[in-house]
Amino acid sequence: MMNANLEQFASDNYSGMCPEVLEYMLQANQGHAPAYGNDSWTQKAADLFRELFETDCEVFFVFNGTAANSLSLAALCQSYHSVICHEMAHIETDECGAPEFASNGSKLLLGKGQNGKLTAEAIETIVTKRNDIHYPKPKVISLTQATEVGTLYTIDELLAIHEIAQKHHLRIHMDGARFANAVVAMNKTPAELTWKSGVDVLCFCGTKNGMAMGEAIIFFNRQLAEDFDYRCKQAGQLASKMRFISAPWLGLLETGAWFRNASHANQCAAYLENQLLTIEGIELMFPRQANAVFIKLPESVIQALYTKGWQFYTFIGAEGVRLMCSWNSTQERIDQLVADIREQLESTQLRSVRQTLTSGQ
Amino acid sequence: MMNANLEQFASDNYSGMCPEVLEYMLQANQGHAPAYGNDSWTQKAADLFRELFETDCEVFFVFNGTAANSLSLAALCQSYHSVICHEMAHIETDECGAPEFASNGSKLLLGKGQNGKLTAEAIETIVTKRNDIHYPKPKVISLTQATEVGTLYTIDELLAIHEIAQKHHLRIHMDGARFANAVVAMNKTPAELTWKSGVDVLCFCGTKNGMAMGEAIIFFNRQLAEDFDYRCKQAGQLASKMRFISAPWLGLLETGAWFRNASHANQCAAYLENQLLTIEGIELMFPRQANAVFIKLPESVIQALYTKGWQFYTFIGAEGVRLMCSWNSTQERIDQLVADIREQLESTQLRSVRQTLTSGQ
Amino acid sequence: MMNANLEQFASDNYSGMCPEVLEYMLQANQGHAPAYGNDSWTQKAADLFRELFETDCEVFFVFNGTAANSLSLAALCQSYHSVICHEMAHIETDECGAPEFASNGSKLLLGKGQNGKLTAEAIETIVTKRNDIHYPKPKVISLTQATEVGTLYTIDELLAIHEIAQKHHLRIHMDGARFANAVVAMNKTPAELTWKSGVDVLCFCGTKNGMAMGEAIIFFNRQLAEDFDYRCKQAGQLASKMRFISAPWLGLLETGAWFRNASHANQCAAYLENQLLTIEGIELMFPRQANAVFIKLPESVIQALYTKGWQFYTFIGAEGVRLMCSWNSTQERIDQLVADIREQLESTQLRSVRQTLTSGQ
Amino acid sequence: MMNANLEQFASDNYSGMCPEVLEYMLQANQGHAPAYGNDSWTQKAADLFRELFETDCEVFFVFNGTAANSLSLAALCQSYHSVICHEMAHIETDECGAPEFASNGSKLLLGKGQNGKLTAEAIETIVTKRNDIHYPKPKVISLTQATEVGTLYTIDELLAIHEIAQKHHLRIHMDGARFANAVVAMNKTPAELTWKSGVDVLCFCGTKNGMAMGEAIIFFNRQLAEDFDYRCKQAGQLASKMRFISAPWLGLLETGAWFRNASHANQCAAYLENQLLTIEGIELMFPRQANAVFIKLPESVIQALYTKGWQFYTFIGAEGVRLMCSWNSTQERIDQLVADIREQLESTQLRSVRQTLTSGQ
Repeated sequence: MMNANLEQFASDNYSGMCPEVLEYMLQANQGHAPAYGNDSWTQKAADLFRELFETDCEVFFVFNGTAANSLSLAALCQSYHSVICHEMAHIETDECGAPEFASNGSKLLLGKGQNGKLTAEAIETIVTKRNDIHYPKPKVISLTQATEVGTLYTIDELLAIHEIAQKHHLRIHMDGARFANAVVAMNKTPAELTWKSGVDVLCFCGTKNGMAMGEAIIFFNRQLAEDFDYRCKQAGQLASKMRFISAPWLGLLETGAWFRNASHANQCAAYLENQLLTIEGIELMFPRQANAVFIKLPESVIQALYTKGWQFYTFIGAEGVRLMCSWNSTQERIDQLVADIREQLESTQLRSVRQTLTSGQ
Repeated sequence: MMNANLEQFASDNYSGMCPEVLEYMLQANQGHAPAYGNDSWTQKAADLFRELFETDCEVFFVFNGTAANSLSLAALCQSYHSVICHEMAHIETDECGAPEFASNGSKLLLGKGQNGKLTAEAIETIVTKRNDIHYPKPKVISLTQATEVGTLYTIDELLAIHEIAQKHHLRIHMDGARFANAVVAMNKTPAELTWKSGVDVLCFCGTKNGMAMGEAIIFFNRQLAEDFDYRCKQAGQLASKMRFISAPWLGLLETGAWFRNASHANQCAAYLENQLLTIEGIELMFPRQANAVFIKLPESVIQALYTKGWQFYTFIGAEGVRLMCSWNSTQERIDQLVADIREQLESTQLRSVRQTLTSGQ
Repeated sequence: MMNANLEQFASDNYSGMCPEVLEYMLQANQGHAPAYGNDSWTQKAADLFRELFETDCEVFFVFNGTAANSLSLAALCQSYHSVICHEMAHIETDECGAPEFASNGSKLLLGKGQNGKLTAEAIETIVTKRNDIHYPKPKVISLTQATEVGTLYTIDELLAIHEIAQKHHLRIHMDGARFANAVVAMNKTPAELTWKSGVDVLCFCGTKNGMAMGEAIIFFNRQLAEDFDYRCKQAGQLASKMRFISAPWLGLLETGAWFRNASHANQCAAYLENQLLTIEGIELMFPRQANAVFIKLPESVIQALYTKGWQFYTFIGAEGVRLMCSWNSTQERIDQLVADIREQLESTQLRSVRQTLTSGQ
Repeated sequence: MMNANLEQFASDNYSGMCPEVLEYMLQANQGHAPAYGNDSWTQKAADLFRELFETDCEVFFVFNGTAANSLSLAALCQSYHSVICHEMAHIETDECGAPEFASNGSKLLLGKGQNGKLTAEAIETIVTKRNDIHYPKPKVISLTQATEVGTLYTIDELLAIHEIAQKHHLRIHMDGARFANAVVAMNKTPAELTWKSGVDVLCFCGTKNGMAMGEAIIFFNRQLAEDFDYRCKQAGQLASKMRFISAPWLGLLETGAWFRNASHANQCAAYLENQLLTIEGIELMFPRQANAVFIKLPESVIQALYTKGWQFYTFIGAEGVRLMCSWNSTQERIDQLVADIREQLESTQLRSVRQTLTSGQ
């Protein structure tokens, strides 16, 4: 754990709380406050979300993203329904069956699509493939914005998917683990990226945006939110000292930190991308559009970087790595990382050249 | 909400973070740390629990008490089993069916007993009442220590229940929403109150003890903890920035604040009890043994106190109130409360005397 | 099992198939038929139910009563909702938590009422007792007609309950384990006893009415039946050779056997009641209104009857027995049973008289 | 439905009851019998299964295959575990999420393999792919014998899979929808095909073997069967008039009909295969090893056969058809089918020849 405190590129959830979040948490810690969300912080935070999204949406606060996604999906379908998502969707690959548990059995139907994005065509193929009672009935489309590979659904892509959704009576769920980064990158309003594009419910992640913990579930389709507060309570997602989740949210929204943090992370990723591309032979796995850079690296280089204490995820089933930037990434560390990658790559190439020579070819 | 910041007697979860918890949270906020509990804070906190309980127990951290109780109960039985608890048990009266949800249908079988405590006899009556396949098979006994009405199970009572448990192959779950207060009040070691008395799993509440949020689930019966980390993840109870739950726990345990906070709350309740008993006609509903005082008050007095801005819960189905003390209760506010109760009671009695006179009797 | 084939009084589900059911099953066994209900028998049986209930209801066939009740209840509420039923309701006392399992956690809230019947007042008390998020929200009222103790809800009682249901937005589920017996006894139409009295869904039991197995779930509120066929399939209640459930139903409905069988059972129970009342000291536990007679008997008499090979259930928690008549009960066996009870009771009384004398009082 | 009674090739569950099943059902219909399996038929049937499998296994009877598979899988894993099965496994493609529902969320992990069979390698690849907490932990391997495409796992293949299972602590579930056909085809004992090859639990299908409805769940690993009777009851799978499921089973086992029925179906399929192969251009999709023949046919031919009233399933996502033989298939109808296929194919080929000519090439 010697490098534990060193800034890293594994995930934006390795970062701590940003100053604004901390400040509001300290304020909220003054004196006593009613429990279970009946406090002024929670009321204010919910109102600010309605302001931010320019609509009278229903807002709920839960502890983490697993709960936000699985409970909101459960609110959109019954156990014998199914949810269509990309084969690389986080709800499929990294939630340990949480959606199936919360919904008591809803199946995830996996679609394909370049750059981690579902296409309207892929969705229709899945919906029309089966319509008999022996297969769970598709009811929801789940989209991740920004996607798991750091790409973005354009407004046109969202609208095309919405058209298919309406045609087949499907609801649209948006996993907003990095929604703030998407808003910043696309230069669109939160409203344009969600309900104006047909999204029924959004899970807006605060943890990756600079909070200690806490997600907001935002129902633009208010009917689907009926009794959702009971669902949260029953699932163990109603915080007694709610103010410690809602006040930090207020800190992000009221000060604009939510936007600044995402901007900083995106800019760091852009800078990292540009620096990496100055290295010969570096190949991007996906277009860099938000705060993550995916590149291919030889196994030996990956190991060497780990040995030097760098932290990042290798991309499943590929000789690639995910480099995630956060609200508190710094140019200095990015430069160090790029330098180490450059050095490792060159020595590797040198080795292979030597081997070629000695092998007398 | 004008009195929101005023210290109150509604619940210990109206209080904020104690200084030690805050200090450790600030320390944990330095730099980056691995997610999902792979950080040094989490490791240290778990080790300190093993030290505190003098045994090699399995420790898991979740967000709140609803989750701690329902997930640990689900680990102790299957959906077609049942859990025996007191009819006033929190898991029955205030969890919105969370245990039934987490276990996918386990029934709670309600037992009676004075002062909110299950008796070995009551348990045996329930276990032996039915043994046919049409009724869920009892598998777990759930005890709350301190109980929902602020009373305590003695070691002898716990051992008697353990004997019944062994006789009928039942496991013992302890809801420790106010476990710290029980340890302090009984002058016993945490070990004596738990595994040495036959408890298989304890839910140790940090929130009411001075944290912002966070509970520890402690399995003394390690076999029952198999794959429990997967259960937590699937149920949306694995914090990505786990350090913000585990570091505060470390703050409570390493500094001894967990004990001091509980002692203070208990002492305040004792002082409140004594002061109240100086008022003529005040009647305790249950013996005051931990940090809660339950008294009967006329409806008119209750309303008058609410009007004055006092916050407390009225006890379901009775003309009584629950006055809960916390780690940050103060003698000054207690004196004010007692004074107001005294005043209201006297004016009420005066009114009734006047009515008697004017009615010429 | 020596008396296994002897007619008994334990339950109407100890009886076999009535002739009409068998005849239709044999007809249905000719040749091949499409699976999963896409056969002509299933279509016809559903149509006959619509005719019988004089409305365009949705009809589904499942294997047994546990499934019919728990799946239909699950269709009426979510996991965080609750179902109000009588404390003696079969879904509470004899389904091993099936409703909680099928609904993934819905709680049953128990009401009281004389003769096994919920009252509108009892329901309102439960609904208004709690309205906070920590307690599951009441959404359904479940009534058993005829009740578990052989009594009947009058039309007026049903309408009073319907009024409360509308006032509090509750849906009404009817457990019709012995619905046919109720129709016969009340001399009302099936429509009057159900949707005309506000019932949303009825579980009509075929097994106790003379089938080998099979229940019909009838949704008068068609909205609540949306995708219910998927629910049945997912829960393992879609028969592949459906004709062997639907054809027997057709046998009951087309020939009127459903009514004749119930009439016979009721008449036998009336005859049994009258004969029993000729015995001195016999006391009815509940008014005999359908096909069951409940009487109190001394423990010694109960044991003596068991020894003689009689089969019946002792009534939980009472020195009483339930004597259930069926479509194939006979006067001869009833007379034998009454004779044996009379003989046992007299010898018991004789014994006690002797004891009194010898004790010299 | 005009051809409903005509023998067909859609599925063996389009067939009715075989004579032996009917005879035992009629015998069981004499007089009264205790409910819920406490009758002599059920006891005898269970004993015969123990005899047939030459071991003291635990036997349970449920209504259909969906329930048998999903409840037994639920007994083998928890909600946060996963089940490895072939991508064409019935539990994945045709149970509408029943396994996920019964287990409250267990995920199915799909493996590949020729001829619908999982390989030990494919299983190991899945097990070793992920071992982090964010992905459900593999706990069960589910094999279908005979497979969904009518092929068979050899004893060697089963033993190789068992080796992998032991290495990774996985349990083995066998979907025996057509287990009888497998036993007949492989000329091995039921014991050799199951527990002697490492199978923990088998779902033995009676419906497709000549019953009206009813499956047997056979636990060779008795520990896994603990309280399974409660699970069946809670899930709505305990028949009150159990004798009508167990007596037919006795009919199949005691008379040897289970073997004769399967032999006849397999022989019919072999005959059908041989006749089809005399047609020029007929191509088998999978080796014919049990009672199903899969062949490719042009869309136009498929439609023409449907028009003539033939019933069969087209194979998902392929220009192919599944022709399933049953205990009551006849050579006469097989000859008719083959003749019609031959005629349709030739006229099609003729048409295409004509087109070629007229197009002057």
